Amino acid sequence: MSYNKTASITVETINPKVKTINYELRGEIARHAEMLQEEIEKNPGSRPFPEILYCNLGNPQALGQRPISFFREVLSLCDNPTLLHRDEARTLFSPCAINRARRIIESMPGRDTGSYTDSQGIRSFREAVANGIAARDGFPSRPEEIFLTDGASSAINLTMQLLIRSDEDAILCPLPECPLYSSSIILHGGTMVPYNLSEDGDWGLEIFEVKRCLEEARISGLTVRAMVIINPANPTGQVLSMANQEEIVEFCRKEGLVLLADEVYQDNVYVEDKKFNSFKKVARSLGYDKNDISIVSFHSASMGYYGECGRRGGYMEICGFGEDVLGEIYKVASVTLCPNIGGQILTSLVMDPPKLGDESFETFLAEKDNIHSSLVKRAKTLEDAFNSLESMTCNRIEGAMYLFPRIQLPSAAIKAANAEGVSPDTFYACRLLDATGILVVPGSAFHQVSGRDRASGTCHIRCTVLPSEEKIKAMIPRLRDFHESFMDEFRDRS
Amino acid sequence: MSYNKTASITVETINPKVKTINYELRGEIARHAEMLQEEIEKNPGSRPFPEILYCNLGNPQALGQRPISFFREVLSLCDNPTLLHRDEARTLFSPCAINRARRIIESMPGRDTGSYTDSQGIRSFREAVANGIAARDGFPSRPEEIFLTDGASSAINLTMQLLIRSDEDAILCPLPECPLYSSSIILHGGTMVPYNLSEDGDWGLEIFEVKRCLEEARISGLTVRAMVIINPANPTGQVLSMANQEEIVEFCRKEGLVLLADEVYQDNVYVEDKKFNSFKKVARSLGYDKNDISIVSFHSASMGYYGECGRRGGYMEICGFGEDVLGEIYKVASVTLCPNIGGQILTSLVMDPPKLGDESFETFLAEKDNIHSSLVKRAKTLEDAFNSLESMTCNRIEGAMYLFPRIQLPSAAIKAANAEGVSPDTFYACRLLDATGILVVPGSAFHQVSGRDRASGTCHIRCTVLPSEEKIKAMIPRLRDFHESFMDEFRDRS
Repeated sequence: MSYNKTASITVETINPKVKTINYELRGEIARHAEMLQEEIEKNPGSRPFPEILYCNLGNPQALGQRPISFFREVLSLCDNPTLLHRDEARTLFSPCAINRARRIIESMPGRDTGSYTDSQGIRSFREAVANGIAARDGFPSRPEEIFLTDGASSAINLTMQLLIRSDEDAILCPLPECPLYSSSIILHGGTMVPYNLSEDGDWGLEIFEVKRCLEEARISGLTVRAMVIINPANPTGQVLSMANQEEIVEFCRKEGLVLLADEVYQDNVYVEDKKFNSFKKVARSLGYDKNDISIVSFHSASMGYYGECGRRGGYMEICGFGEDVLGEIYKVASVTLCPNIGGQILTSLVMDPPKLGDESFETFLAEKDNIHSSLVKRAKTLEDAFNSLESMTCNRIEGAMYLFPRIQLPSAAIKAANAEGVSPDTFYACRLLDATGILVVPGSAFHQVSGRDRASGTCHIRCTVLPSEEKIKAMIPRLRDFHESFMDEFRDRS
Repeated sequence: MSYNKTASITVETINPKVKTINYELRGEIARHAEMLQEEIEKNPGSRPFPEILYCNLGNPQALGQRPISFFREVLSLCDNPTLLHRDEARTLFSPCAINRARRIIESMPGRDTGSYTDSQGIRSFREAVANGIAARDGFPSRPEEIFLTDGASSAINLTMQLLIRSDEDAILCPLPECPLYSSSIILHGGTMVPYNLSEDGDWGLEIFEVKRCLEEARISGLTVRAMVIINPANPTGQVLSMANQEEIVEFCRKEGLVLLADEVYQDNVYVEDKKFNSFKKVARSLGYDKNDISIVSFHSASMGYYGECGRRGGYMEICGFGEDVLGEIYKVASVTLCPNIGGQILTSLVMDPPKLGDESFETFLAEKDNIHSSLVKRAKTLEDAFNSLESMTCNRIEGAMYLFPRIQLPSAAIKAANAEGVSPDTFYACRLLDATGILVVPGSAFHQVSGRDRASGTCHIRCTVLPSEEKIKAMIPRLRDFHESFMDEFRDRS
């Protein structure tokens, strides 16, 4: 046998699953935007816009959202616990933060933050999370069923690793979808079975459509193990109604599907007539316990009013798997030793924030309400702006962090996209970026088909609600000007 | 088709790869120790020892190693950058730490630590790492080839995911091995091909043995893609000689194997006559560049004098894969968005610590030297202690954090182990724990065979050098007493 080293590690010889995944969220357009940003920094004035406006990622603090002071004070003290013994620290840190940090440090191995923890996360943090869930839902939660993780994405990967045995195992996922799911399913060797959300029905989830997909998948020989639901939804911004959630619980229960509830946007609801309900709460309210239905709920410290993306904090609550299965999950979690301590601390804070009566409560509440009410305002402003544009329609944004407007592109624009070998939505997003510096994600990154003609797909962009109110105000006229001239450019030839 | 939900997620129906992995490092005995610890806390005096002495994990700060002040000050400031604008902070933080934190914050998206970063890690940190590598090796390093990761374990998992296409792809790994490797290879569907380290040759790596394993693997139809080398070695404590490293580089080059260099213990060398050399440095010194050999070097913020395990910081340097392959790795890294920010900061600090001339340098150096010289002392003390025990031999500990003594157990002890259905080394480790509270890891957790009789295996324990000097002093007589009575108990019947 002879081996040629230089040929050994090429894209042709790596794991083909790695090649297959398509993670456009951080793909081509994002890299082009980075390049433009560098160009502007080197050569101010070289482009018709002063900076790139990153409306592509749910990354609130990168766009100026301020962190919650209490959270950061606690983190800062925990990272350097010697401060807890210094009187001068009282001038820089609130008494509440000092007390909380002291309690946290007491519960740590080695009374400091430098050690590996339990692979499942520090027990007292899991208790804080479980208590937070119980207070939110009105139903008990057990720390034994909580796994702290490096963000929700690690938890989702671990779950896919557990559930998928071969490409005959399938997972039902919403379309348009969050590319994390398809990537994770592909990497773990499984099959994704997409079900369409109904754009005409406010991006709602229609059980008959899911049933159709499930049946087709079963007929083709697949074993469907689980159903993913993102609520509030990414990228569509929908918040499910209680009635819809009840249907879903009934469906999963009857069909023996694990309900994978992506609930990372639970603190991002923007409309008065909708409210976040966890799927576990819905199931328990219907009288179903862990023997009736298995639910894994994912949450993250990256979203909500906290938006601490860089910390990579999160948890999953696993209800309805046996103790022995939890043991197996623990074993896999052990392979990467433990979730990072900063993320663990932050997750405990998100689920156990200052309470009425605590000295820090008023400041905390003011900061939180400020962020939330501003997000409500920004969401509405952008929704109205998109709806005011020619050939653009945007459903109501009820929650999460994104608008997902649909554009009826002129045929000439679609032809031009075909000529460039890109999908029409990518074509539109690239032109928007080059003209205005506004970076959005084409709908096809969420596997929403944007076909070669009007009949074979629909064209969307995803735009976050995260730029500051001021920047949104400046952004809308730029968006409008671009859109008008784009439509004009292609109108005549259509 | 009918589905029975309650049976759907059981250990019988999960991914069998998850079931197969054996991660005893955090297994049965560790859980038993936790239970004992809880019992002692509730009922002081209920056991013949005041506490569990955790000699099982390389978790330095859990056993009292103090963190480097400079690192913690910088982390603390970065977590709460408002401190940088407060005069009072000058009484609590050194000017050096304030400057460094300021520089770090300047390089962050959103000028704060709350955002997702580049999936590969913040550019300025990768530059710091690359500069650190270049200063260490005397050969250039490129930030484009550095990926910051959540500890080395994430990097290793990502690499296995990239290299392994099916169970016909194999990875050469040392035996006794670090169970992270076998677990990761199994989870990614590959085959581990173990090569034996030579206990009689000071746990050295003998190329003829590796060659034998490679050839056998190839004959059996496997495609061997890479060879793992842990240097300094876990669990055996060996530091490879330059000559040995050169042989390995030649071997991997000729055979077209990717050299996976686990170099996380590079700052843990305890003997005067050995020195850490990175495999990249060795390859470059031999005149080989990235076209001749592919090397991935793993490093971590968890070891060395820093020992910041809980941060989950680390990096891999990838030399010799094409740009397009780096792009594929970037895509996989994107799926979990980015490494945690605390770990990224710490990794940059480890590779770019205070330098001569910096105000913090003396304190930093004193703290570092203190930890290092104490580790040298502790390693030697424990090595001598193990070697002084009947039927126990312990090779010289040259580096890393572990001793791996071998015990010649009496036949009656092996019989007693068989009767209990556990391996002889597990039997010994359990008895040691119950009698003294000293928790070590049986050699079989490293897949070192501890057979049903003397002929079919050897019996080892792994013990860290991490308890404080004081605790080691108290531990040795307890260990000796236990060992003597254990040997006495089983001697007569042998």
